[in-house]
Amino acid sequence: MAQFFYKSINIFFFFSLLITHTLALDVEKPCKRFVLHYHDILYNGTNAENATSAAAANATELGNFNFGKLVVFDDPVTKDKHHLSPPVARAQGFYFYDKKTEFNAWFAYTLIFNSSEHKGTINIMGADMIVEKTRDFSVVGGTGDFFMTRGIVTIRLDDT
Amino acid sequence: MAQFFYKSINIFFFFSLLITHTLALDVEKPCKRFVLHYHDILYNGTNAENATSAAAANATELGNFNFGKLVVFDDPVTKDKHHLSPPVARAQGFYFYDKKTEFNAWFAYTLIFNSSEHKGTINIMGADMIVEKTRDFSVVGGTGDFFMTRGIVTIRLDDT
Amino acid sequence: MAQFFYKSINIFFFFSLLITHTLALDVEKPCKRFVLHYHDILYNGTNAENATSAAAANATELGNFNFGKLVVFDDPVTKDKHHLSPPVARAQGFYFYDKKTEFNAWFAYTLIFNSSEHKGTINIMGADMIVEKTRDFSVVGGTGDFFMTRGIVTIRLDDT
Repeated sequence: MAQFFYKSINIFFFFSLLITHTLALDVEKPCKRFVLHYHDILYNGTNAENATSAAAANATELGNFNFGKLVVFDDPVTKDKHHLSPPVARAQGFYFYDKKTEFNAWFAYTLIFNSSEHKGTINIMGADMIVEKTRDFSVVGGTGDFFMTRGIVTIRLDDT
Repeated sequence: MAQFFYKSINIFFFFSLLITHTLALDVEKPCKRFVLHYHDILYNGTNAENATSAAAANATELGNFNFGKLVVFDDPVTKDKHHLSPPVARAQGFYFYDKKTEFNAWFAYTLIFNSSEHKGTINIMGADMIVEKTRDFSVVGGTGDFFMTRGIVTIRLDDT
Repeated sequence: MAQFFYKSINIFFFFSLLITHTLALDVEKPCKRFVLHYHDILYNGTNAENATSAAAANATELGNFNFGKLVVFDDPVTKDKHHLSPPVARAQGFYFYDKKTEFNAWFAYTLIFNSSEHKGTINIMGADMIVEKTRDFSVVGGTGDFFMTRGIVTIRLDDT
């Protein structure tokens, strides 16, 4: 069961920066920061009840690291690392593997919040250099409570 | 013949906001707003002449809602709801279905304007929670007349 | 051997514009500009050693211009046009063909810099109207040295 967790997602609100006229870029404040956990269970043909993602395109024959395999996902996102905790958001999008000499991926997805605390979406894309301890994606936009948000998502795998 | 229409596309120009130093975010003014209609006809094997989109990847077996089906499109965009009206733009990009318990999709595409009125592109991405009456995508960038545009696209299905 | 080169990539730093309060948008200065060359060699079943990209989804039967063919790439990027020059970055992402009457594509990818000169990523998406001499993509975000970068990428094919 391929199951992984992302941690330390930091969302910086671009408009907050404008409002304060902070010319020196202090990314900690007044930016907003979240730490969220993604839980992904890849469909393997028999785990439809638990699966949260499935391969839409299979790996090509280029290299031995799934080059070209494209996975669509709809992952629950929680505030702690337990994947059965009540989700605070969904992460919906896709990734594909894109390197022939090691595991490496590329992501684009939307964080969808629909709770009393937050309503809206955050749109994200970036390269996932899996060999590095942490990787940064870009927040490229947002809607609702996250209207026109920009920022950074820092991810790391948590397989504990 | 799967044919649908998107409506009420609102483009907010980010740079206009900067120029007026509007700190309170009045999204109506000086932002620019468009209302456009997309017309999509999915290729079914026999309608090549009319089709404007085709499935590049078929649905997986996860659930009964086309999970993983990926569709590439090149849709005409018109100012009114008649799909044979002269197009004012093309919408080129892709979407895929990404939920196993209901219809839900994720989009990334470019609006391409090439007329005497507008020349340039607007780049868009976001989650399409089809069960909701309207959904918001992010305008993540633009070129030409829409240089570095940001904003929101509000879509709704018009199957009348 | 499908091999092509992109040229004249111009990166405009959005934050630089803010800092100088340049209200009239002078995109030349204080923006930063790169000229880079992408080198793409599509996997054909026998060139695994040299290939830098592979088709994850084959073309559909809609038209004769590869509609729906989706290619994942991990291309070296160099400062000059020689594809064996030391890479200054990698371009990792995907494109697909999306027009039934001519060659036309859509791209999303990340430029990954990991050298003493630059560390960080630049995220890019846009439509590639191949029939036009040059096309513009959007820089939708960045990380590391390119924190929250925005701008334009102008590409052209260099098959000399």
